[in-house]
Amino acid sequence: MSTSINLAVIPGDGIGQEVVAQGLKVLTAVLPQDVKLETKQYDLGAQRWHRTGETLPDAELEALKHHDAILLGAIGDPSVPSGVLERGLLLKLRFAFDHFINLRPSKLFPNTATPLAGRPDIDFVVVREGTEGPYTGNGGSLRTGTPAEVATEVSVNTAYGVERVVRDAYERANSRPRKKLTLVHKNNVLVYAGHMWKNIFDKVGQEYPEVTTDYLHVDAATIFFVTQPERFDVIVTDNLFGDILTDLAAAVTGGIGLAASGNINPTGAFPSMFEPVHGSAPDIAGTGKADPTATILSVALLLRHLGYEEQAVRIEEAVSADLAERDGTFRSTDAIGDALAARVAG
Amino acid sequence: MSTSINLAVIPGDGIGQEVVAQGLKVLTAVLPQDVKLETKQYDLGAQRWHRTGETLPDAELEALKHHDAILLGAIGDPSVPSGVLERGLLLKLRFAFDHFINLRPSKLFPNTATPLAGRPDIDFVVVREGTEGPYTGNGGSLRTGTPAEVATEVSVNTAYGVERVVRDAYERANSRPRKKLTLVHKNNVLVYAGHMWKNIFDKVGQEYPEVTTDYLHVDAATIFFVTQPERFDVIVTDNLFGDILTDLAAAVTGGIGLAASGNINPTGAFPSMFEPVHGSAPDIAGTGKADPTATILSVALLLRHLGYEEQAVRIEEAVSADLAERDGTFRSTDAIGDALAARVAG
Ligand SMILES: CC(C)[C@H](C(=O)O)[C@@H](O)C(=O)O
Ligand SMILES: CC(C)[C@H](C(=O)O)[C@@H](O)C(=O)O
Repeated sequence: MSTSINLAVIPGDGIGQEVVAQGLKVLTAVLPQDVKLETKQYDLGAQRWHRTGETLPDAELEALKHHDAILLGAIGDPSVPSGVLERGLLLKLRFAFDHFINLRPSKLFPNTATPLAGRPDIDFVVVREGTEGPYTGNGGSLRTGTPAEVATEVSVNTAYGVERVVRDAYERANSRPRKKLTLVHKNNVLVYAGHMWKNIFDKVGQEYPEVTTDYLHVDAATIFFVTQPERFDVIVTDNLFGDILTDLAAAVTGGIGLAASGNINPTGAFPSMFEPVHGSAPDIAGTGKADPTATILSVALLLRHLGYEEQAVRIEEAVSADLAERDGTFRSTDAIGDALAARVAG
Repeated sequence: MSTSINLAVIPGDGIGQEVVAQGLKVLTAVLPQDVKLETKQYDLGAQRWHRTGETLPDAELEALKHHDAILLGAIGDPSVPSGVLERGLLLKLRFAFDHFINLRPSKLFPNTATPLAGRPDIDFVVVREGTEGPYTGNGGSLRTGTPAEVATEVSVNTAYGVERVVRDAYERANSRPRKKLTLVHKNNVLVYAGHMWKNIFDKVGQEYPEVTTDYLHVDAATIFFVTQPERFDVIVTDNLFGDILTDLAAAVTGGIGLAASGNINPTGAFPSMFEPVHGSAPDIAGTGKADPTATILSVALLLRHLGYEEQAVRIEEAVSADLAERDGTFRSTDAIGDALAARVAG
């Protein structure tokens, strides 16, 4: 825990700007007076790409390295071909900064809408691998656009990459009261990657005798997410399965407006990056309807990562109390930010 | 529509035997007197593998070719290493018989339990590609079991394979009242395969001006499955995304005990294969608790495929009426089969 935070801010596209503004508002309110917060905004995303054709130039990638952490709003716009910004900016950052822990907590807060009947007690965290699997960009297309086209996507998985994320997940499970860890993969079909994941999962598990483990195929896991989500404590899974499962997790725990995430490099070699799970939602951008809570909860993850545990908890408790007390009337992006900033202020 | 049906039956593992018996009971009851039903049982699955080490010998694969259709119960057992039976038997059949349409209807029947609050009106069908994508078995492992292991899985996609399944999905959408087709992929990350799917989807769509289309990333699709499933009519997607989405679809429409599927080769070059979406459920095998309805609804798909539309509808209506009238008391596998057989009997 340092006495200054040098934060990079990438508001990005659509509602990104709006939600990030509220995240910074709450961050400023929660920090002790003697912590110096410096922020630098990076103009990256759809507008920049339209203007200059650039997604993430080397100079900015280099500059970003020197921050303590990155707060990101949202990336993606319908005016940009699908994949350009995702691969060229968001995934480029995750890979360049070796964010191998993609941390996504899921909690059903009081008084929030869930599509599930009976309001199960949901409180789990998905540890999604962030630098391998089908996300590596390996693959290609032959005879593109012709009736003879062949397109491939290669999922690349290494023992090095799998072991470090699996170990992190065991550590997290071990430090939680229920001490339960579930591996999700599809090792009855993806036998090469799936068996490697399972073997490493079992091997590392020997070092954590107090952690109860189980294994689920990804298809079966989606069933339990809606029929029995309370069964989960910590889940570890690959990059693509984690992507799919965490959107579903967000949906069953009151919606994507509340789902936070951290792209974490626990070694500290590069800055970690915190962002809401939701996208840029261009349809509601500028209307004041965006819920900044996911970004504000991502700020809590950011603070925890930088050693400000007390402040992280204060934000999480503020969100919980705020949701419990709200009466269901509409509140603007700004109003939610104000309410939470007021609650966390020393 | 022939006047005889030469059916191959693969009961398989766990509850497979029990549910298939009920499927055959209902099939026998619904068929017109003058249709000759011949069935031949194939002893394939876990027990066979333990006894002989075989999953699907060439001679049996050859023999299976000469049937009009295949009814399969369930494949897989914890006593067999994960992947052996799935790849060596189930997927071998789907690939050998070029089952490129994996058809999975999802309907929320009256009076059935759904985990979703508010009981949305769900009635859609997933057209899952069945012979490509990450299911081809391409991939491998280098330095297996060492800390330097690299494991790959290659998703192989061809314009040939994608166009035929996309066209089939447009045909289905075009023949339904709502005429709506949704493509699900992840083309912002899996850009090679994803863009090919999207381009072919758009191109074939020009031939179906009456069909309304949209596109969803797979992660977003899972959200709509729980928050707004009534928005879907026909969905077309790749092999792995289809696997994941149809388990989730089954869960929200009253459970895996009701989800039917057809592995269809519409050209008729090889027999099509019909099976419940659920697995072998070894934990309840032999207890009489397995719900045979998914298998019985798979028999309806089988009949439709063979031209017995009237009989297919009769089974589907019987299931619907049976569910509407049940009082919630426990009924055994056998009792459900008996009730449905009685309802469909001419
Ligand atoms: C925008 C996209 C590349 C990204 C992903 O697939 O990881 C998003 O869905 C997420 O979950 O953060
Ligand atoms: C058993 C398994 C290989 C299979 C699949 O993944 O296709 C099953 O999950 C299914 O959906 O039919």
